Amino acid sequence: MSYSKRMQRLKASAIRTVQKKIASNPGVISFAAGLPDSDIFPLQALEEVTQKVIVEKGKVAFQYGLTKGYQPLLEMLAKRMKSKEMVECSMENITVTTGSQQGLALSAMMFLDEGDIVLTESPSYLGGINACRPYGAEFIGIETDDEGMIIEDLERQLQTHNNVKLIYVIPNFQNPTGKAWSSMRRKEFMETVNKYDVMVIEDNPYGEIRFRGEFVPSLKSMDTKGNVIYLGSFSKILCPGLRVAWICANKEVADLAEKLKEGLDLQCNQFAQLQVHQFLTDCDVDTHIENIRTLYKEKCDAMMACIKSFFPKEVQYTDPEGGMFLWLELPESIDASELLDLAIQRGVAYIPGEPFYAYDGKKNTIRLNFTVPSVSQIDKGMKIMGQLLTEVCVGK
Amino acid sequence: MSYSKRMQRLKASAIRTVQKKIASNPGVISFAAGLPDSDIFPLQALEEVTQKVIVEKGKVAFQYGLTKGYQPLLEMLAKRMKSKEMVECSMENITVTTGSQQGLALSAMMFLDEGDIVLTESPSYLGGINACRPYGAEFIGIETDDEGMIIEDLERQLQTHNNVKLIYVIPNFQNPTGKAWSSMRRKEFMETVNKYDVMVIEDNPYGEIRFRGEFVPSLKSMDTKGNVIYLGSFSKILCPGLRVAWICANKEVADLAEKLKEGLDLQCNQFAQLQVHQFLTDCDVDTHIENIRTLYKEKCDAMMACIKSFFPKEVQYTDPEGGMFLWLELPESIDASELLDLAIQRGVAYIPGEPFYAYDGKKNTIRLNFTVPSVSQIDKGMKIMGQLLTEVCVGK
Repeated sequence: MSYSKRMQRLKASAIRTVQKKIASNPGVISFAAGLPDSDIFPLQALEEVTQKVIVEKGKVAFQYGLTKGYQPLLEMLAKRMKSKEMVECSMENITVTTGSQQGLALSAMMFLDEGDIVLTESPSYLGGINACRPYGAEFIGIETDDEGMIIEDLERQLQTHNNVKLIYVIPNFQNPTGKAWSSMRRKEFMETVNKYDVMVIEDNPYGEIRFRGEFVPSLKSMDTKGNVIYLGSFSKILCPGLRVAWICANKEVADLAEKLKEGLDLQCNQFAQLQVHQFLTDCDVDTHIENIRTLYKEKCDAMMACIKSFFPKEVQYTDPEGGMFLWLELPESIDASELLDLAIQRGVAYIPGEPFYAYDGKKNTIRLNFTVPSVSQIDKGMKIMGQLLTEVCVGK
Repeated sequence: MSYSKRMQRLKASAIRTVQKKIASNPGVISFAAGLPDSDIFPLQALEEVTQKVIVEKGKVAFQYGLTKGYQPLLEMLAKRMKSKEMVECSMENITVTTGSQQGLALSAMMFLDEGDIVLTESPSYLGGINACRPYGAEFIGIETDDEGMIIEDLERQLQTHNNVKLIYVIPNFQNPTGKAWSSMRRKEFMETVNKYDVMVIEDNPYGEIRFRGEFVPSLKSMDTKGNVIYLGSFSKILCPGLRVAWICANKEVADLAEKLKEGLDLQCNQFAQLQVHQFLTDCDVDTHIENIRTLYKEKCDAMMACIKSFFPKEVQYTDPEGGMFLWLELPESIDASELLDLAIQRGVAYIPGEPFYAYDGKKNTIRLNFTVPSVSQIDKGMKIMGQLLTEVCVGK
């Protein structure tokens, strides 16, 4: 069999490889997950709205629907984009997607030819990078500080390369670092990109999970030229199993995404769209999100306290104001992938940070998740992490 | 904005365009749909299994799952492929997809580079053709008769072109013609393709909806070299809204499909997979399929009776033994697209057949659906169709 050229460019998710390793060590406390805490899923409410969907709209819910999405949900999403993100838009700007991952894939397919360049934060979400790989794109990582992409580096790359087609960013509580961009940096970023013919993918699955600090407007709300493709999702604010997410973009892009999606999977799960629509209609999603914030803050605080108590001073760390992750930078001599086996032996697991870079990732980095383990698991596991890191950083 | 080259190759579904036209004429009796009859959805059973999933497995159902699919469902699908299709396979040969449309897209992406050739039946399902378009494939329609692809024409094309990568076929009750391949032709087809390095996509959404004649084995059951990618789906035997379908292929292809899917949408809806799994566990799906067959036979019989009573002898038609469609061929001078407006004015709608050909489709063809209208709508609508066709074929 002779596969297409794009198959040679594929790269399996390094996360899922590590997760398989951990799965075979069931006693391990895992900071390696990328999942929301399933204890917070509103099962009772989901049971009620699901039953209502079947009884009242069963024939519509189980039937084929439109590629663009279930119309009442589209309307609701447009409204929510206005009220939550202050984005002026209507139903015509929205297309429902199977997770934000499909929004990434559609954007990549719409804009990337072989050799085109994608600018990313460095590190960045590897699912975003992998979504672009099959189409032969090259990646350039832009330097970032605690406020976001460094504008001088961004501008330099945009000036140097005339085939930058996409800039992929996660301005809120990024996966993997947990960092959020400042308001000022977002403005400067938009002013800069508006000078070039380039599209921005603003991936925002964690934006509503802010448990500290103040709301910062999305790039999309500052988008005067229609160059931002905003990706929203219910995976982190309701549940990921339903795979209901959306694109908000200029009408032409939203229409093309719909047309492309038709050939890719015809449409999203209709039933799930009605479930989400009914949930948003009957239940108070904002109170639910508030509960998520409270829970994740407690867990993040526990993790931060452990870092301060048990970690050697040689380890640098981010201090997230939201989301699901934080990021460690160890002394350069330490390879986090090599250390993982020892960590698993001791009873803890994490994701080495290297795969979150498109090329030549820093081997001395680690992503930690704080949403899946309980507070007592965090306390226990982080103590083990601290001992281990102390040993390798400063000797026993 | 400069889109990728593949965007110029996209073609929106002509079906959905016609369907929008019909939607604005609500009184019209439509034979244009491609939907199962929603009156037969087992709502009561679906309500029960859905509630059970939430109560007993809610935290798993609403959480992320594996890209390949929900393991108990994968096992069940492998079993079903053995018992129903006599295909020797195990879980490792299966990958769950978002509708068979995603199985088509994954196959296209795995094998097609620009300029590669896809052989199709002529006419063929336009969703299959459109799934291949973005990757720059060329199409060659193979002549067919009532038993399937004509082997001499197939062999000639395989000998002439060394870059035929895929052969796309729907051997059971094809969309759009309703035809099914004979057992002998399937054997000859497999013997022929086995001589070449080419993959076969066997798209089989309608196979279980046989309401006349005898079961004919799938191509996959005759596949000695692992060259057939079998696409199965619950859309027609349970409901399409859940978008649960699957690929059954050799292990290497199933694994690559999983890897590719990871970047496309990460995974299918987990909840829907558990719904289907619970339905297959608790309910008698085969009795349900028997009910579908009975209903669709009644409707197909009604349509055939009307054709025999009201249609002029100049109109040729297929005589389906299953599925959801039949196919008309009018005298060559008649353009079915042009006739559609008049038909809608008179109160009936259909899909012109031309878009079901990759290039230069026959304008004098029509696809009729018999599963959505009721028997009395079929009687009424087909009488109108008959009058209209009589007028244009033989004059008033």
